Amino acid sequence: MKTCRVGLVGITGYAGMELARLLVAHPAMQLVMACSRAKAGKRLGEFYPFLEKLPGADVEISVFAPRNAAEICDLVFLAVPAGTAMGMAALLLEHGVKVVDFSADFRLHNAQTYEEWYSHNHTEKNLLDEAVYGIPELYAERIAGARLVANPGCYPTSVILGICAACRHDLIHTDDIVIDAKSGATGAGRKAAVQTLFCEVSDTFRAYSIPRHRHTPEIEQEISGLAGRKVQLSFNAHILPMNRGIFSTIYTKLKNPRIQPDSVYTAFCRTWKDSRWVRVLPQGSLPETRYVRGGMFCDIAVVTDPRTGRLIILSAIDNLCRGASGQAIANANLMCGLPVETGLGMAPLA
Amino acid sequence: MKTCRVGLVGITGYAGMELARLLVAHPAMQLVMACSRAKAGKRLGEFYPFLEKLPGADVEISVFAPRNAAEICDLVFLAVPAGTAMGMAALLLEHGVKVVDFSADFRLHNAQTYEEWYSHNHTEKNLLDEAVYGIPELYAERIAGARLVANPGCYPTSVILGICAACRHDLIHTDDIVIDAKSGATGAGRKAAVQTLFCEVSDTFRAYSIPRHRHTPEIEQEISGLAGRKVQLSFNAHILPMNRGIFSTIYTKLKNPRIQPDSVYTAFCRTWKDSRWVRVLPQGSLPETRYVRGGMFCDIAVVTDPRTGRLIILSAIDNLCRGASGQAIANANLMCGLPVETGLGMAPLA
Amino acid sequence: MKTCRVGLVGITGYAGMELARLLVAHPAMQLVMACSRAKAGKRLGEFYPFLEKLPGADVEISVFAPRNAAEICDLVFLAVPAGTAMGMAALLLEHGVKVVDFSADFRLHNAQTYEEWYSHNHTEKNLLDEAVYGIPELYAERIAGARLVANPGCYPTSVILGICAACRHDLIHTDDIVIDAKSGATGAGRKAAVQTLFCEVSDTFRAYSIPRHRHTPEIEQEISGLAGRKVQLSFNAHILPMNRGIFSTIYTKLKNPRIQPDSVYTAFCRTWKDSRWVRVLPQGSLPETRYVRGGMFCDIAVVTDPRTGRLIILSAIDNLCRGASGQAIANANLMCGLPVETGLGMAPLA
Amino acid sequence: MKTCRVGLVGITGYAGMELARLLVAHPAMQLVMACSRAKAGKRLGEFYPFLEKLPGADVEISVFAPRNAAEICDLVFLAVPAGTAMGMAALLLEHGVKVVDFSADFRLHNAQTYEEWYSHNHTEKNLLDEAVYGIPELYAERIAGARLVANPGCYPTSVILGICAACRHDLIHTDDIVIDAKSGATGAGRKAAVQTLFCEVSDTFRAYSIPRHRHTPEIEQEISGLAGRKVQLSFNAHILPMNRGIFSTIYTKLKNPRIQPDSVYTAFCRTWKDSRWVRVLPQGSLPETRYVRGGMFCDIAVVTDPRTGRLIILSAIDNLCRGASGQAIANANLMCGLPVETGLGMAPLA
Repeated sequence: MKTCRVGLVGITGYAGMELARLLVAHPAMQLVMACSRAKAGKRLGEFYPFLEKLPGADVEISVFAPRNAAEICDLVFLAVPAGTAMGMAALLLEHGVKVVDFSADFRLHNAQTYEEWYSHNHTEKNLLDEAVYGIPELYAERIAGARLVANPGCYPTSVILGICAACRHDLIHTDDIVIDAKSGATGAGRKAAVQTLFCEVSDTFRAYSIPRHRHTPEIEQEISGLAGRKVQLSFNAHILPMNRGIFSTIYTKLKNPRIQPDSVYTAFCRTWKDSRWVRVLPQGSLPETRYVRGGMFCDIAVVTDPRTGRLIILSAIDNLCRGASGQAIANANLMCGLPVETGLGMAPLA
Repeated sequence: MKTCRVGLVGITGYAGMELARLLVAHPAMQLVMACSRAKAGKRLGEFYPFLEKLPGADVEISVFAPRNAAEICDLVFLAVPAGTAMGMAALLLEHGVKVVDFSADFRLHNAQTYEEWYSHNHTEKNLLDEAVYGIPELYAERIAGARLVANPGCYPTSVILGICAACRHDLIHTDDIVIDAKSGATGAGRKAAVQTLFCEVSDTFRAYSIPRHRHTPEIEQEISGLAGRKVQLSFNAHILPMNRGIFSTIYTKLKNPRIQPDSVYTAFCRTWKDSRWVRVLPQGSLPETRYVRGGMFCDIAVVTDPRTGRLIILSAIDNLCRGASGQAIANANLMCGLPVETGLGMAPLA
Repeated sequence: MKTCRVGLVGITGYAGMELARLLVAHPAMQLVMACSRAKAGKRLGEFYPFLEKLPGADVEISVFAPRNAAEICDLVFLAVPAGTAMGMAALLLEHGVKVVDFSADFRLHNAQTYEEWYSHNHTEKNLLDEAVYGIPELYAERIAGARLVANPGCYPTSVILGICAACRHDLIHTDDIVIDAKSGATGAGRKAAVQTLFCEVSDTFRAYSIPRHRHTPEIEQEISGLAGRKVQLSFNAHILPMNRGIFSTIYTKLKNPRIQPDSVYTAFCRTWKDSRWVRVLPQGSLPETRYVRGGMFCDIAVVTDPRTGRLIILSAIDNLCRGASGQAIANANLMCGLPVETGLGMAPLA
Repeated sequence: MKTCRVGLVGITGYAGMELARLLVAHPAMQLVMACSRAKAGKRLGEFYPFLEKLPGADVEISVFAPRNAAEICDLVFLAVPAGTAMGMAALLLEHGVKVVDFSADFRLHNAQTYEEWYSHNHTEKNLLDEAVYGIPELYAERIAGARLVANPGCYPTSVILGICAACRHDLIHTDDIVIDAKSGATGAGRKAAVQTLFCEVSDTFRAYSIPRHRHTPEIEQEISGLAGRKVQLSFNAHILPMNRGIFSTIYTKLKNPRIQPDSVYTAFCRTWKDSRWVRVLPQGSLPETRYVRGGMFCDIAVVTDPRTGRLIILSAIDNLCRGASGQAIANANLMCGLPVETGLGMAPLA
């Protein structure tokens, strides 16, 4: 197996930490560049104490320079804020380096929707058609041929995988979807802020950004694609007093309220029977975030409620691995000609 | 202020602990009896180490005996399982002792509904008409005259208070309500069980009893009363990796999707303007369970989403205080002729 | 009971929040002033959402001005950083206002020790003799007559109360003491910082400031007083993944390694038998921070280990209530001529 | 690399879960047998939902039978209670199967000490001489030749690795050692019990088994070996409100109180410079359990306190991986002729 040399721009957040963690176990990808203006000059292991004595620890943190990147990297992961990523991506592509971008900058096909939800201009609109939305289960082939992959948001990953089978089998009214999503606190990022201090998150529960969370248009775009019609839905986010994990409870209405629960279950199983990472739980079982912690699985339960004519889908992923860095590696694997699962065979840390 | 002598049957659960805690600060209620077959003979303070050197610590735990209760208690709190409570309540009433029952045994007016959801017979059907559902904000007058109060479930308390104003002002379609509720782990009780061990609840999130949680009929009964029509809804419960607190996110559809958010907000404020314990948060603020921890408040936010025509109500309470023992004391206050807030003036432990 | 009007300078930290919480339940103290440069102009309830609809919520936050304070306050609590407090205290005293200072500025009798451990000059050395170290169990009489009380550190409170009986009964070698202390994360304060983010504290454990934690000289000063000789000891702090509570494990050597455990236990019980808030646990029981959460108790266990000739003392308090704001109120009670326990009768929130 | 076929007896505890997790990533070990009387007949993946779609999920749980084991396993891991393990080990050895035993049954060379601390008889005393104490850093060669390895306790692993360099370089008085150890709640096991329920462990901190924790003799035995004299010490355990991790703070007295901190540090670095898993942190850094979570590292800080003449050693490991199942695999690797690190190259889940 040939080795793919990769770089990471943006090391101070949780996605960067998680990427470094996962690359340690990757047999065909080598971290050769780590960029951060603030930390330049340090060894990566100094900044990530967990990484000492492991591959990548000795990489010297540098300031981002696309020409350097082009010399030493086949592919670069951008873990920088929306708005910053787009320009970096354009530069890297110009220099012939492939890009997996963690930000929202290339997730929405429609620049106007982007500008409406993100409140700044899109300066690289010409790349939007080329960028591929990076869910391997849906777009593996296009990802494999892409120079630029937009790594999906964590919430959207859990929701899209959760609802996919219901759309494909035309089980639900797609104009009446409510998503109640809950995320571990790593989802709030690693910036110093009073509201994400331990004592402000521990032992409490809250909602945020209701009713206009920025992941909404991305979810609507993909569900629209699956449903074959323009879908508007209600997406609502909450923060959990724990580090990792996203749990989405998806409320839908059955097209046929008298459908047998077994038929629904069978449809879900059929959609995912060959999937490596989507696990449809046995009927009667419900997912838990701990069973997917640190891994690539998306655990899905589907519950038919004949009393109310609803279909309730419950979906759990790890927000940092499946919802960010692990999915980024899966995408990079495909872009580098590697099997999608390379380096991602670990068990969840239950 | 004359003192009301009270007893507690069922000391081993969290509701009993919380009741003992709250009675310490009550100026007009004295714990004179604490019953538990398993712990009989011990001092209450031995079993509740937090209570030592405080009022109630020296009560000797005894086996439940209605005649004894009648001799020394004006009122008894029953914190025993559904099914067990009904018989005890009947005996106490026979002996002239008032009862606040924490279980579901007297919450549902309809015995058949009870038997359907709780899977055992109701042996005291004749008391169902007399029992008052104990939400002081809704039924203060009837509670004051009652011999038997059915203390509401924790989830129902948060949901009913949350949705009440929307029903009263006829803002929503009551046939299309979805409730996504999340509870701290004290809600799962204090029985030894692997699934509620620290390591099975910490750092994880899960749903349970979907789609048939036993609190559903109680919520439907009360919302039906508020709406003036028979309401069926979807109630869904999740367990949070924290001790206390319930957070209900209530998804409804607006009758008038173009209604001004300000009008909705004003309607909520009007309903609760004289309420001691229901706090409608400023527009733009969302509740957090920590701000109601250990107290009687119900914090409510109301969010109008013109994009989807939905009204989202977020409601937070402390499940043990407002959702159980504090509400029980409020009910007992009314039953004993005391101001409803007596002994309940503490601030939340934020 | 006459009402004591009090002010609070420094509202943004946890000690300020806790003080506001406790004053709600205080029958003879009224919060009339709350100062913060950053938040001036807001109502206190806006900044402390838990406080809405409770006493104190409507106080308007103002900029600190000693003359104003003198007009409306009998006593002011200073919850500002060491170095800032000393000047404010001097001004308030000049204007005839009593002061309880939460900082370390007046805890050490020796200015040179202060300057050595706190790395800045002491500008109010003349007040050091007058200031009383505010542990009511040790100095009630002097506190009652004081204009200026230095509210003790949280760790020192747990250690001094824990070790007091052993010194008084001359049970241990005071030249060989090791303290391993663990604190909830509120002890790290409420400043925005990456290292105290939820995801950096949750699910992990660490030590800090070893071997030179600033509470060391304060502990040595007081133990020296109890022992009647100059004591140097090893004090070591750790941070717990929880909000509240301090647990100190104190390792000492018995003067008489063959002493009967019962004798030691009896000595401890004798020292504290009339104490309202110090609870010596039954032999065989060990303290837990939850049993003192939110209250004034100090729970102490004393374990004699004949195998190693050691006496191990375990002491648990709530760092915010007993270790800061509750103790401040106890001190203020004494300074205002009120019974020490006024407003502090609540049960711990177990 | 030839594959080693392994069995696991005792699947219901956390060590069993962790072993199954680690074997997924092991390139040369295959789980072919999983035993549990209570769960026999189920697939392992049914009982461990995190394992579905991963290697080992389809193993059918069976009742332990040494003959079966002999047919299909090269080596068996025993994750059963002390007292039960010794007989099983003897049977397996008779049938020619190598054993790594997680219990204490073969850790102490002296049967009398075992019986004194574990309160039951040792029925396989003849195996005590043969059993090797399984810390690869100390006994790699003997482990490689062993039929029976006693996998060390979690606390002892952290303490022995922490203190080893100090003994080897003769830096401390070995007759005056105090260990204050703190463990995540997985250390308390997975039995249903009220005292380990989420609500009894969360948000609180406590000590237990003081002053006679069963890991004491094991620590004393190994430190005695390192020190070359019989050592008695004070070992004290506490439970942390988190799942994984052990943190030991080790208090010792320097033989030479005026020794330069740099000399001490250099001595520690020298001892561990070629170690794969022991990381001596840079001076000024202190360990955190999260940086070793889920991995094999032991992070050590050494702090010289000239003020008190003490040497304080802080040591952090993951109790389930390094302190149990990961170390078991390292031992099994050696016993099977594999490089010690095989399958253990993962990064900690920080």
